[in-house]
Amino acid sequence: MPDSTPHSTPAHAFDEAMRLAAAAPGRYAGRITPAYANMVGPFGGAVAAVMLNAALSHPERQGDPVALTVNFAAPIKDEAFEIVAHVARTNRSNQHWTMQLMQQGEVACTATALLASRRETWTDTELLPPQVPEPTTLDLFPGTELAVWPAMYEMRFAKGELKLHGSEQADSTSTLWVRDNPPRPLDFLSLAALCDTFFPRVMVRRQSFTPIGTVSLTTYFHADAQSLARQGSDYLLATARASRFHNTYFDQTAQLWGRNAELLAVTHQLVYYR
Amino acid sequence: MPDSTPHSTPAHAFDEAMRLAAAAPGRYAGRITPAYANMVGPFGGAVAAVMLNAALSHPERQGDPVALTVNFAAPIKDEAFEIVAHVARTNRSNQHWTMQLMQQGEVACTATALLASRRETWTDTELLPPQVPEPTTLDLFPGTELAVWPAMYEMRFAKGELKLHGSEQADSTSTLWVRDNPPRPLDFLSLAALCDTFFPRVMVRRQSFTPIGTVSLTTYFHADAQSLARQGSDYLLATARASRFHNTYFDQTAQLWGRNAELLAVTHQLVYYR
Repeated sequence: MPDSTPHSTPAHAFDEAMRLAAAAPGRYAGRITPAYANMVGPFGGAVAAVMLNAALSHPERQGDPVALTVNFAAPIKDEAFEIVAHVARTNRSNQHWTMQLMQQGEVACTATALLASRRETWTDTELLPPQVPEPTTLDLFPGTELAVWPAMYEMRFAKGELKLHGSEQADSTSTLWVRDNPPRPLDFLSLAALCDTFFPRVMVRRQSFTPIGTVSLTTYFHADAQSLARQGSDYLLATARASRFHNTYFDQTAQLWGRNAELLAVTHQLVYYR
Repeated sequence: MPDSTPHSTPAHAFDEAMRLAAAAPGRYAGRITPAYANMVGPFGGAVAAVMLNAALSHPERQGDPVALTVNFAAPIKDEAFEIVAHVARTNRSNQHWTMQLMQQGEVACTATALLASRRETWTDTELLPPQVPEPTTLDLFPGTELAVWPAMYEMRFAKGELKLHGSEQADSTSTLWVRDNPPRPLDFLSLAALCDTFFPRVMVRRQSFTPIGTVSLTTYFHADAQSLARQGSDYLLATARASRFHNTYFDQTAQLWGRNAELLAVTHQLVYYR
């Protein structure tokens, strides 16, 4: 299983953030490490990934992730939490999970996940990857004063970099090469986290600071274990845009491509903004 | 609240399908009526809508739907079911729900929903609606032998009609005008159901029958009560396509536009296929 591949190198900070201790069957204690801190609490992508990790760590787990939805119900504190993971249903080729992240006795996140075993079928990719320059020809994103977590990713923007002091953009599209920093072989957990590395579309579009918070995040994993192995620790080509901003909520739809133009994940989110 | 607007006409079959009886606090008994039957069990859009209805019917409900995810964990039988709805968290301006649909003591569906109160903000729609002829200039879809439920919708395809005896299409895109049949004023429940009225992308792309089943469906509602009132019972312009078909799972991403070119909902799903 690619998400438990042993590395000869010391543990990556991401592995530390993902660490869960089984407190009881289906109950896991965790804490997102400070390297992945956001403006308030931890980076949502790390939260989504650690909730998925609760299902993947469970002894009843069958299969690999194909769908994950995480709802951010309250600001998560930079403190310890507990994740409760339940198998809702196990079928022949797939398994449905529900998870809750609890902090101080209250629900901070709810989630559902679908794990599955795949078989070979007729296969086709309809979307085309964006046409962009090679990653190393693009400037390294210098980071932002807004949060710590972006330093844990190597980002090289072809379009739609977050500047926060420019003029309003024609659209909210961002397209970039991105991978863990330092590089780390891709697994389902890091792919789940990478799906939330896009800066808020409203800030990219307007190039000004706006208070925001993702309220719901859904990822469909097209990658299987072989896709992850092909990708290794190479760059992913990521592109995201909003459809509509309307009275405190906007949506974002995004794709993450492997270096070999394989569509690894599509991911959607709904974001609160003021 | 638009979803409880009294109609002077007799109850629409959709209202009958949505009917829930409160068996206990947060426990609702229901049954999708035969008019909305699918190949196996009831139409998934009606199931998604009735699960949302459990949250909207709950006395603790605050706000209108902005996000809904429904996971289809098992084939639902054409029989009575119970929906259990819990408030996971109530915040100042939004409320998180978890739901489960039970049949014969087993979980058949899991779901999460986010209800919210909106405020006026900077607003913009980035996507453009597809350019298509006026609805009444397009042929009425004659229905399909595959299922009963499509007869409950008036569909007029501009592109990507389901024929099942043509040659493989260049892509899986379908674009159509669609509304309830007979027409019914749009509310959040019917909008939730309309989001699942697209025929399976793999069948549209390949124009041949393939066993399929939606496993996870996520809808973001951009429509608010005013949008629904503006729309009334007019046609919606709906467009859907797949990103990738890969080894037993494909995704679909879709938009539903109002007649006045207002983006009412974006919706995504992951579908099992053989």
